[in-house]
Amino acid sequence: MSVLLEFSMFPTSNECVDGSSVSSYVSKIIDAIDKSGVSYRLTPMGTVIETETMKEALAIIELAYKQLQDCDRVYSSLKFDIRKNTKNRLKTKIASVEKILKREINH
Amino acid sequence: MSVLLEFSMFPTSNECVDGSSVSSYVSKIIDAIDKSGVSYRLTPMGTVIETETMKEALAIIELAYKQLQDCDRVYSSLKFDIRKNTKNRLKTKIASVEKILKREINH
Amino acid sequence: MSVLLEFSMFPTSNECVDGSSVSSYVSKIIDAIDKSGVSYRLTPMGTVIETETMKEALAIIELAYKQLQDCDRVYSSLKFDIRKNTKNRLKTKIASVEKILKREINH
Amino acid sequence: MSVLLEFSMFPTSNECVDGSSVSSYVSKIIDAIDKSGVSYRLTPMGTVIETETMKEALAIIELAYKQLQDCDRVYSSLKFDIRKNTKNRLKTKIASVEKILKREINH
Repeated sequence: MSVLLEFSMFPTSNECVDGSSVSSYVSKIIDAIDKSGVSYRLTPMGTVIETETMKEALAIIELAYKQLQDCDRVYSSLKFDIRKNTKNRLKTKIASVEKILKREINH
Repeated sequence: MSVLLEFSMFPTSNECVDGSSVSSYVSKIIDAIDKSGVSYRLTPMGTVIETETMKEALAIIELAYKQLQDCDRVYSSLKFDIRKNTKNRLKTKIASVEKILKREINH
Repeated sequence: MSVLLEFSMFPTSNECVDGSSVSSYVSKIIDAIDKSGVSYRLTPMGTVIETETMKEALAIIELAYKQLQDCDRVYSSLKFDIRKNTKNRLKTKIASVEKILKREINH
Repeated sequence: MSVLLEFSMFPTSNECVDGSSVSSYVSKIIDAIDKSGVSYRLTPMGTVIETETMKEALAIIELAYKQLQDCDRVYSSLKFDIRKNTKNRLKTKIASVEKILKREINH
């Protein structure tokens, strides 16, 4: 099974926001994900991780929130694409589009 | 703490879709949420639950997926609004908007 | 055609956030939607509107952003469910779940 | 102004789904975005575009739906991050995280 989870998570309360910037807190989350050993890719709008089970993916959400747990208010937007009998979709999904279009695509 | 989680989850593979309809599987999820005892509200686009901890909210996501685990492919879109020192926001968030606007709003 | 759009939109920059609260700006959006005449329902996590075309739904997103355009940074999370040969799904989607489960559900 | 829009859009009705796969329709959308000239990046879970105005971003959503308009049912999940006085965030957001963490991150 391949569980793809794309998500962003950030503080929205003033004491954790620097003007308009939340990059210090977002960096804490990326740091924790990177060190956790899970397969991931950072995008300009969030992080995509791939796991073999829902339990592992949900544990990453919990890990991410732990990095922000001192903030009064936290927002997160997420989506799952869960598919059986496949793996390594962090790479194959983009490759599949390029194969159909027969050219390279920005990624 | 109040953890609000809004989410929708549905199968996207043909063997679990009846033409355009996924209401039998969506109903299974609502049934499981209703019987779990968690505070929730059904909307035309998903379900909003409220818990006191992230762990409880993540357990509901896992429970929801269990209802669809026989389907080859499942999609889910979710958002969290996590706020400290508050509760019962399933009711108070809408009431707060009505208080500011000084009139009733469709809900 | 029935275009269902669920969305939330709020400022995330300090000058438009009152501690942890964004309810004054969220209320401005609800006020504009209510006055626009579009079919809608407020939920604890956003607003669901129903239109007959994509153009109308996209115009509501633009209208919502106009209410926040003085804020340095704005975030929005949205989802569309677009289905042909149907209408009035703000009501019928919940009724359909209740019919399958043969009981009333919190909404 | 920099409008970042991350979105995925796909058919969910049987006549447009090949088993579990929607990659032929997703490729149509990527093809249209690529040819439109807008700045974009494909990710394993969607597409991120960057525009200078909301109008341009909303036009891309409309363009994407046009590629799927023959399908009975279409689903889309989206998020906006709109920020004033900045540009080129398709590149700078990831670079900013790497600068804070003082190391390269998978992207």
